[in-house]
Amino acid sequence: MRLTKLVTRTSKMVPSEEESKNAQLLIRAGYVHKEMSGVYSYLPLGKIVLDNIANIVREEINKTGAFEVQMSSLQSRELWEKTGRWDDKLVDNWFKTKLANGQELGLGLTHEEPVINSLLPFVSSYKDLPFAVYQVQTKFRNEIRAKSGLMRSRELLMKDQYSFSKSEDDHKKYYEEMADVYLKIYSRFGVGDITYRTYADGGIFSEFSDEFQTLSEVGEDTIYVDEEKRIAINKEVYKDDVLKKLGLDKSKLVERKAVEVGNIFSLGTKYTKELGLDYIDENGKKQDIVMGCYGIGVSRMMGLLAEHFSDEKGLSWPKEVAPAIVYLINIGNDSEVVKAADEAYDELTAKGIKVIYDDRDLRPGEKFADADLLGIPYRVVVSEKNLAEKKYELKARNEDSLHILSMQELLKYIA
Amino acid sequence: MRLTKLVTRTSKMVPSEEESKNAQLLIRAGYVHKEMSGVYSYLPLGKIVLDNIANIVREEINKTGAFEVQMSSLQSRELWEKTGRWDDKLVDNWFKTKLANGQELGLGLTHEEPVINSLLPFVSSYKDLPFAVYQVQTKFRNEIRAKSGLMRSRELLMKDQYSFSKSEDDHKKYYEEMADVYLKIYSRFGVGDITYRTYADGGIFSEFSDEFQTLSEVGEDTIYVDEEKRIAINKEVYKDDVLKKLGLDKSKLVERKAVEVGNIFSLGTKYTKELGLDYIDENGKKQDIVMGCYGIGVSRMMGLLAEHFSDEKGLSWPKEVAPAIVYLINIGNDSEVVKAADEAYDELTAKGIKVIYDDRDLRPGEKFADADLLGIPYRVVVSEKNLAEKKYELKARNEDSLHILSMQELLKYIA
Repeated sequence: MRLTKLVTRTSKMVPSEEESKNAQLLIRAGYVHKEMSGVYSYLPLGKIVLDNIANIVREEINKTGAFEVQMSSLQSRELWEKTGRWDDKLVDNWFKTKLANGQELGLGLTHEEPVINSLLPFVSSYKDLPFAVYQVQTKFRNEIRAKSGLMRSRELLMKDQYSFSKSEDDHKKYYEEMADVYLKIYSRFGVGDITYRTYADGGIFSEFSDEFQTLSEVGEDTIYVDEEKRIAINKEVYKDDVLKKLGLDKSKLVERKAVEVGNIFSLGTKYTKELGLDYIDENGKKQDIVMGCYGIGVSRMMGLLAEHFSDEKGLSWPKEVAPAIVYLINIGNDSEVVKAADEAYDELTAKGIKVIYDDRDLRPGEKFADADLLGIPYRVVVSEKNLAEKKYELKARNEDSLHILSMQELLKYIA
Repeated sequence: MRLTKLVTRTSKMVPSEEESKNAQLLIRAGYVHKEMSGVYSYLPLGKIVLDNIANIVREEINKTGAFEVQMSSLQSRELWEKTGRWDDKLVDNWFKTKLANGQELGLGLTHEEPVINSLLPFVSSYKDLPFAVYQVQTKFRNEIRAKSGLMRSRELLMKDQYSFSKSEDDHKKYYEEMADVYLKIYSRFGVGDITYRTYADGGIFSEFSDEFQTLSEVGEDTIYVDEEKRIAINKEVYKDDVLKKLGLDKSKLVERKAVEVGNIFSLGTKYTKELGLDYIDENGKKQDIVMGCYGIGVSRMMGLLAEHFSDEKGLSWPKEVAPAIVYLINIGNDSEVVKAADEAYDELTAKGIKVIYDDRDLRPGEKFADADLLGIPYRVVVSEKNLAEKKYELKARNEDSLHILSMQELLKYIA
């Protein structure tokens, strides 16, 4: 991508009412546009980052054999009344709307009910189980406050997954498998080392649920981390009897602020029973289906990565998430330099490496500043100085040292 | 994909209130679930088809240099009041909702206003033009009637694209380029031969707009086709003076029913002016920006393809859109047959060919019926009869003849 063609550009301005660092940086870098408090649109580079995050999730979830679906956002009142989750007094962050004929509808904030309902025609026998479906979909949540940028939005992109098992034992096995997959996903996002599987309140379904919490000073959650065991416990269940039950030693726990980047929940048979999803077992007996749900906030993860991987100069994306791997700069408009930069662009692109080519007529300092603000992992400079030897100057975004490399060495370096 | 693993299955039942053939077939084949009138969810195979359609559009649009973005669904009243399109009396198919604090919001039904608004920080000079952005996004339209299945939905997936040009001349050039791209896209969907660029009413912006109309007995539009010139004219502008102006000969026009599968619109400077998107030209003078918009209904196209490519046995997807290319069947459970079918599955999959493997313990007739209903382009049968010679029986969905082929011949045949 040539920057002379890209419609967005960086800016020193941010909307005055934007309090969060992640949204400030993403707006300054031209990745997102703030539509209103808690609602963001994704501009070209932001859309690439969002897709990269979603596709890492898809890759890992597909490996588990779950099928991708796409539920509707518009939700029927009748369906949610069956489980008692329609009433605004019980679920307080619904967005509601109306059909032209006055019939009330909801905008999906989670999808247990419609997923079960859509599966009713297909599941009847033990042979149909177990299975799981997931979607990467826009959710609408009518949050009273939305001040953490992409980390707590009213319109958000989420991966939500639903598993269906023959028994509590089968469910537990799948649930543990998913917990491991989650840790792998956070590793690919570059936050594996600061993300903890965290005991949290299980609500009405089970004693505990599991959250995945990433350490962050701006996190809304307080957790207690056992670094040795690589697990944590949410403040909401941090009580002596619970610690004892979990075999956690209070003296080893350190209080930290964290952001919930995922959660997995055992739902038991509540929803499947209420909506009539059951099966006939090997002996011809009707049995209840055990359900689990598994969420990852995709747009929230983008906010967290922006918040975490950044410094006073701007963003610094992990490789797997970055909108490009190389930020290519030509210094000056000498025709030999431009020709060499054009060739480097073609060569890198032909090798399948994503390049942002800053071919604008700007001073080197401005280009360097934009390379840093956009947070591209490697900055590659083509200048007269190294032209004779056909060498390039490479600098990693998160290192200070410069490397003078041939194209072959450069390719090896960034591989 | 092994059918023993797939959660959905075919059915002889359709919801009694479903009138449209496309939705009836897609529901019977387990591709979609009807949430309510005009609202469908996409089950695993349906999601693949929907993605295939969207990705063909993306591929062709990306080639034109347009950038993909993702606008929000939630829309602010203030923005749309600036162009006079907020009032339900003027735009009668809004879904409206409310923030917790009572502030009214809309659900995006088109995105001219937010796209322009998001670009204000980036466009100021002639150097920033021309460019185009697009998105593949869920739209919400509060239709009074919704009875054509996926062809007229209340929640729909749409590709909407917006171009910004320095002058009317530049705009016209881009507009004609997009018209050609559109025809290429419909060819890839397999309906190039029955899709016509169609003169239609230009509304308040210009004399004519261009629709892309695909012939269909269930279409809601009436068009007059000049088969020789490969163009058509919508009934709404079918008047003697218009025909004369367009150089169309009434005696060569044939009346047909058709479905609008895309439209392209010149918007002039109305919206850019109202929202303050302008530029400084080469001479330092402020100029208006000329805008165009370009829509393709992605989910509507899925409905149309289901409606058009089907017969009494079921669906018959075009190759580029089908959820798989081969429907592989083992006849009987003889261990040699199963082993050969497993091997064929592995071999085809390793070659990058998408296969639905009907490994269920069912009678051949049931498997054949499902291959037809699901509409997979090629049915491949592994049976004892051809096992000794290591041959496979191939039948194309839309042909009657059977071919007995080696794996190599088979690969060549379906390539």
